[in-house]
Amino acid sequence: MIPRYARPEMTAIWSPETKFRIWFEIEAHACDALADLGVVPREAARTIWEKGGAATFDVERIDEIERTTKHDVIAFLTHLAEIVGPDARFVHQGMTSSDVLDTCFNVQLTRAADLLLADIDALLAALERRAFEHRDTVTIGRSHGIHAEPTTFGVKLAQAHAEFQRCRARLVAAREDVATCAISGAVGTFANIDPRVEEHVAEAMGLKPEPVSTQVVPRDRHAMFFATLGVVASSMERLAVEIRHLQRTEVLEVEEYFSPGQKGSSAMPHKRNPVLTENLTGLARMVRSYAMPAMENVALWHERDISHSSVERMIGPDATVTLDFALARLAGVVDKLVVYPNTMRANLEKLSGLVHSQRVLLALTQAGVSREDAYGLVQRNAMKVWEEGADFLIELIADPDVTAVLDEETLREKFDLGYHTKHVDRIFERVFGRAA
Amino acid sequence: MIPRYARPEMTAIWSPETKFRIWFEIEAHACDALADLGVVPREAARTIWEKGGAATFDVERIDEIERTTKHDVIAFLTHLAEIVGPDARFVHQGMTSSDVLDTCFNVQLTRAADLLLADIDALLAALERRAFEHRDTVTIGRSHGIHAEPTTFGVKLAQAHAEFQRCRARLVAAREDVATCAISGAVGTFANIDPRVEEHVAEAMGLKPEPVSTQVVPRDRHAMFFATLGVVASSMERLAVEIRHLQRTEVLEVEEYFSPGQKGSSAMPHKRNPVLTENLTGLARMVRSYAMPAMENVALWHERDISHSSVERMIGPDATVTLDFALARLAGVVDKLVVYPNTMRANLEKLSGLVHSQRVLLALTQAGVSREDAYGLVQRNAMKVWEEGADFLIELIADPDVTAVLDEETLREKFDLGYHTKHVDRIFERVFGRAA
Amino acid sequence: MIPRYARPEMTAIWSPETKFRIWFEIEAHACDALADLGVVPREAARTIWEKGGAATFDVERIDEIERTTKHDVIAFLTHLAEIVGPDARFVHQGMTSSDVLDTCFNVQLTRAADLLLADIDALLAALERRAFEHRDTVTIGRSHGIHAEPTTFGVKLAQAHAEFQRCRARLVAAREDVATCAISGAVGTFANIDPRVEEHVAEAMGLKPEPVSTQVVPRDRHAMFFATLGVVASSMERLAVEIRHLQRTEVLEVEEYFSPGQKGSSAMPHKRNPVLTENLTGLARMVRSYAMPAMENVALWHERDISHSSVERMIGPDATVTLDFALARLAGVVDKLVVYPNTMRANLEKLSGLVHSQRVLLALTQAGVSREDAYGLVQRNAMKVWEEGADFLIELIADPDVTAVLDEETLREKFDLGYHTKHVDRIFERVFGRAA
Amino acid sequence: MIPRYARPEMTAIWSPETKFRIWFEIEAHACDALADLGVVPREAARTIWEKGGAATFDVERIDEIERTTKHDVIAFLTHLAEIVGPDARFVHQGMTSSDVLDTCFNVQLTRAADLLLADIDALLAALERRAFEHRDTVTIGRSHGIHAEPTTFGVKLAQAHAEFQRCRARLVAAREDVATCAISGAVGTFANIDPRVEEHVAEAMGLKPEPVSTQVVPRDRHAMFFATLGVVASSMERLAVEIRHLQRTEVLEVEEYFSPGQKGSSAMPHKRNPVLTENLTGLARMVRSYAMPAMENVALWHERDISHSSVERMIGPDATVTLDFALARLAGVVDKLVVYPNTMRANLEKLSGLVHSQRVLLALTQAGVSREDAYGLVQRNAMKVWEEGADFLIELIADPDVTAVLDEETLREKFDLGYHTKHVDRIFERVFGRAA
Repeated sequence: MIPRYARPEMTAIWSPETKFRIWFEIEAHACDALADLGVVPREAARTIWEKGGAATFDVERIDEIERTTKHDVIAFLTHLAEIVGPDARFVHQGMTSSDVLDTCFNVQLTRAADLLLADIDALLAALERRAFEHRDTVTIGRSHGIHAEPTTFGVKLAQAHAEFQRCRARLVAAREDVATCAISGAVGTFANIDPRVEEHVAEAMGLKPEPVSTQVVPRDRHAMFFATLGVVASSMERLAVEIRHLQRTEVLEVEEYFSPGQKGSSAMPHKRNPVLTENLTGLARMVRSYAMPAMENVALWHERDISHSSVERMIGPDATVTLDFALARLAGVVDKLVVYPNTMRANLEKLSGLVHSQRVLLALTQAGVSREDAYGLVQRNAMKVWEEGADFLIELIADPDVTAVLDEETLREKFDLGYHTKHVDRIFERVFGRAA
Repeated sequence: MIPRYARPEMTAIWSPETKFRIWFEIEAHACDALADLGVVPREAARTIWEKGGAATFDVERIDEIERTTKHDVIAFLTHLAEIVGPDARFVHQGMTSSDVLDTCFNVQLTRAADLLLADIDALLAALERRAFEHRDTVTIGRSHGIHAEPTTFGVKLAQAHAEFQRCRARLVAAREDVATCAISGAVGTFANIDPRVEEHVAEAMGLKPEPVSTQVVPRDRHAMFFATLGVVASSMERLAVEIRHLQRTEVLEVEEYFSPGQKGSSAMPHKRNPVLTENLTGLARMVRSYAMPAMENVALWHERDISHSSVERMIGPDATVTLDFALARLAGVVDKLVVYPNTMRANLEKLSGLVHSQRVLLALTQAGVSREDAYGLVQRNAMKVWEEGADFLIELIADPDVTAVLDEETLREKFDLGYHTKHVDRIFERVFGRAA
Repeated sequence: MIPRYARPEMTAIWSPETKFRIWFEIEAHACDALADLGVVPREAARTIWEKGGAATFDVERIDEIERTTKHDVIAFLTHLAEIVGPDARFVHQGMTSSDVLDTCFNVQLTRAADLLLADIDALLAALERRAFEHRDTVTIGRSHGIHAEPTTFGVKLAQAHAEFQRCRARLVAAREDVATCAISGAVGTFANIDPRVEEHVAEAMGLKPEPVSTQVVPRDRHAMFFATLGVVASSMERLAVEIRHLQRTEVLEVEEYFSPGQKGSSAMPHKRNPVLTENLTGLARMVRSYAMPAMENVALWHERDISHSSVERMIGPDATVTLDFALARLAGVVDKLVVYPNTMRANLEKLSGLVHSQRVLLALTQAGVSREDAYGLVQRNAMKVWEEGADFLIELIADPDVTAVLDEETLREKFDLGYHTKHVDRIFERVFGRAA
Repeated sequence: MIPRYARPEMTAIWSPETKFRIWFEIEAHACDALADLGVVPREAARTIWEKGGAATFDVERIDEIERTTKHDVIAFLTHLAEIVGPDARFVHQGMTSSDVLDTCFNVQLTRAADLLLADIDALLAALERRAFEHRDTVTIGRSHGIHAEPTTFGVKLAQAHAEFQRCRARLVAAREDVATCAISGAVGTFANIDPRVEEHVAEAMGLKPEPVSTQVVPRDRHAMFFATLGVVASSMERLAVEIRHLQRTEVLEVEEYFSPGQKGSSAMPHKRNPVLTENLTGLARMVRSYAMPAMENVALWHERDISHSSVERMIGPDATVTLDFALARLAGVVDKLVVYPNTMRANLEKLSGLVHSQRVLLALTQAGVSREDAYGLVQRNAMKVWEEGADFLIELIADPDVTAVLDEETLREKFDLGYHTKHVDRIFERVFGRAA
């Protein structure tokens, strides 16, 4: 996570201030539950909320204490005692640091997931708007980078929309996976803390109780979370790469919006480069890479070790802040993408009709020619177009073996673009639930 | 995937025979749908089923044809034509290779997922049985590899059970993610094939239609599938590592079952090594690694390129066969695990009562000592045990600062193991829905 | 590793037959050394060579024994005893399985490295030949996929050549890293086997003695080896991606050789797809992915555990066989690549002179215009070309602010292609040690 | 990279101030070379050095300019012009941004490598000192976590020393790999800048000229660099894991130094946890993970795209700062490691002599017993020790089948520890070049 690729709202989730506030809330809610159970005085719980709720935790002071204790939660509790006074001895009763740390981390991750979901919603909205705008903008479909058959630019965007709908559903599941609270004490037996405390804090913090923790929340949950971000990043890369391809000089069917004053190159002033989507391609590599240490974190030793902690201090912010920035950037790129329908049409016509070859092939077989013979007929005419720049329709009309089975009018009909777009409505219905 | 780590049922899913059979079924179902639509003669569809259904596809012959055509689906169709005769020209009408290949791959992956789900069910059954067997087998919980507080061996297994329940749910979702059928023709526009063909084939093959494909099924689905396998593998590694730790000479609380005739070492005949769980640790690394190329596969160029294909030819079998083998091996390890409750108890007592330190700490604070003072009192007695081998209870009783607030009887009570296991029923209820 | 992407020579390195032959050689050389030291009878060592050297090891028989012993080296030694007779008791004296397994694995890896080096040499030869062939074939250089300034196709290939020279050097270092022999007995102390045995076997097998092993060869060596293969694969991907780009319909400056009879698409007979380089892109993802489990293998427990073994049984062949296949395929692609200099020229001229903008910019500043003003002058004319399809030179000549400082002749001179290729000789000198 | 795991010297390499200073030096050296070639006035070059050399670049001002231009190098050059005045127009002549950015990045990486080499040297020194201190401290060697045969703690550390010697050599090679300078202008043809400028700047900055760049330094160099860091991190993890194992309660042969005032647990005051090495284990996962995006960066499009940039802005600091911190921490852990030779001896004796089983096995075979029979004799006595807690030597003496071939004195001799340490000197000679 670096400021260059960070937005304030997501960054704030990972600030020390936010973290200490969440720690406080977990401790204070636990005190409430302990008061309900008669373990701590009701008055003490109230005092903790009042004094702690009003206080601004002093990050520098906590850091200073940690330099002695070498333990962050103890440092925080010591500072809290400075604020709350004698009643502070009722804080953290029967709990371990992990109860606080892990529950807090899950609160942060679920809040991060909420921002990411909002990012995806914005992206989906941009995709939907642009998809309908270009529902009927005919363009060439390409397989292997080679012209294949016509499609529409709207269908391309519809595909992306469907993909990010899936990403959204996966992110909802990933959020659910980490939305647990563990307040179970040392090695997770609840020996020193009643399970009802966990249930109370969970509800208060918008989480579910962890069915069985071992002092820590099991890390398969987080592995799944970060792996899911990696998949979302990969989908983001796909759309970014598509735009990069479409912007290249020889294709130039779309361009990233180029703001006045922006300079493409310190040397070549004519250049307008797809730098945003190139940037997104790199960011996708980063977000993807965090999945691996998250998976390696799962196999903690026995009831817990702390090897996961340094990883999570890094990938927690790194993965979520970077993906948030990237998704927002991608939504912006889609929203303002400059589209050139005329170039799309010109590119489409570049192969002098070859893109209709399959239709001719089918027509031949349907007229009774064997598949192998039809394939040969089409290919020999196609090769003339390919190698000599001839026009495919004219070649076919001039080939007596072809016209022996298909007359000119039938042949001409095979070159109709409408043939390729006739099911676009159906595809839009499937993706957006509406065709127009 | 290597035979050493492969089981026949999963391996069979990836055999050429299975693949060609699925290809045939896709093509034949498509013919049925085309016959319904009046595009191909009903009789031809019937002939295709009859002749193709009865035939055994000749893998060598198909390979031979492919050496010329350099195209596997064309090679198969050519061979199918040899079997079916002239009606073969109605096969594959309006379809592309990807329609067959991708739908087949998804059929294979869903079948693989079904086997993996069965593996997890077997593992869950073994874990549940052993968990209840050792529900009350007291053992020391360890954090950082250091004795912490008592728990039970059953709780350890309950934790694993809860983790594999989550793995199961994730695998169900991953299966769902790849259970789609795409029969949409070149660049996915349905120009040459009616969407109803896709709907028919999907239903016949137990899949759902892909809402919008671009000739290929979008690869974010597969990225999610293989990433999920990586997470499952990581959970597997966690349990394997736990067993390896518990079997080490100084701990020896459990042992993998050691069959008669088995030799642990060519040099040291007394050795019984946790080789199965070490093996599982390595296999987890492999399954995890396949997530990365699967994610890199997502960003195909334009409507499709074929870079994903070589990856999937490898990780399709590699990931599923290896994980299937590993899960089955893990279920066997759990099922036959030799457990030594007496050693667990002996290890637990090794620290001369130090594991009860937190209870004493809490009792002191509840008796009015400040948290900091209580911590100091406990620590100075704990350090004597740690450094001089003293007995913790005896030291506490001899410490007048302690007995000033807690009498001997109260102190003794703090060393009761039952205190730590009192919520085991509650944990079992949460995990298994029953406590006994 | 799958047969589709495997070549016989590399595959043979990983066959059971090869493995058992190497095991035998290690054991027999060790017997020689032990005979030198007077530990075993000279005659026995001779018998072992004679009988074992003449024998074909029966893989099925060894597998059968292993099913009982569950230990592969013991199974082999048992089978060897069946062949050698009573003198077999002198085999494996003071050794452990790892001495055999690890030394064998390193022999296999160094042999594999030798094949990979030969592959790279073939690739370098093809690159060099084609680079000189196209040393002066002018083509447009592209940054961000956007036309930048002219270069030559030979320079592109020279870049690839320099990159694979580096890959070669890295591979030599990686080979060196794994070219060690460990015969140090249990936990590596040489307690039961004299270090001179290790030195003898090392030399006989073309290896160096491992300075300090712990029963196993330390796995950082192998991590480095497989990480290096990952880097080589990434370089391979770069060249493959370049070719894919150059073959796309709108660019079409090169094409993979398309053999007669080959079919590009089952549906579209005109298609000639860059399927080989797409395939290589996927294979690069695979080879790269194996670096991760190899790195995770380093942290074995204490003197050794066996978690690395399952990983290496898979990635040993998977990584080397796949990379060997891929490098050979890439050499073939380069060797037979169809190059279209005319299209290169046509594409270069597509931007109507804009690619010379930087020269004009420089000329303006050298004529005394401030950088900012010069930039503005160039950009306003460039934008006319970009947006209205004008010709850059004509626009400049018509711009009085430009001609105020640069006359027409000077401007024309800035559009000379030779300007861009004047240092090609120098680059070739640097890369190939010769310019022609 | 987060402050918690960062040291100031390495962090400073990646500060904006350092970056702009390096940019300036590259530009100013280039001006010198251009002055030598008569392209720019000597006086201008001198002015640039004088004014720029004296200036402190204003990071905020540069950021402000970048917000308009969206181009960092242009922003810097604009700011430089503010400082230098009219002569600034001679700066950056014929160069592109990448010439500056890539050369700067390589300067930063080589400086980072120098710090990492110093870290490794400190670690090597600590390992060497402790290795000689414990050269003869006998301890049990463990394979699979199971007691195997005796070794010394010094040998364990010698192994680590040899491993980090290799890491050092790899790091030197990796540094060499990125120590190049590219000043080759647009698409790397030197069209606008003489190759002698590159040669001059390279030498001035302590680098070598890049033989053929394509505007950017080829990224295989950086992939190799970061992959190497990943391997070093994995070696670091190995030593960290070893210490974690040795500190666990049941083993407790070493402990991380525990400073006065440090608290192990908020709940259990007796705990002293190996938190530093657990932390290192997590950091190793992070450093390793950065290898993957670095490898994905290699396949830039055509002469260059900018997707690598966002990756490198993150992993440049992340990987080097984290590894620097971790290596320094590891050196500290080794330096201050508390070692318990008595516990090592006590653990060694735990198996009642079983660790000598192989010696007995060998003695039996050397006395003429077949390997299979000898194995059976040893195993049946070993099993009694294992299962009934008997003493291995006493059992052997009581077994008439054993004493039939080996008398009691011979048997006793096989239990001598000196037998296992007799080659320690040899191993130390190999690793340190000296035995004492």
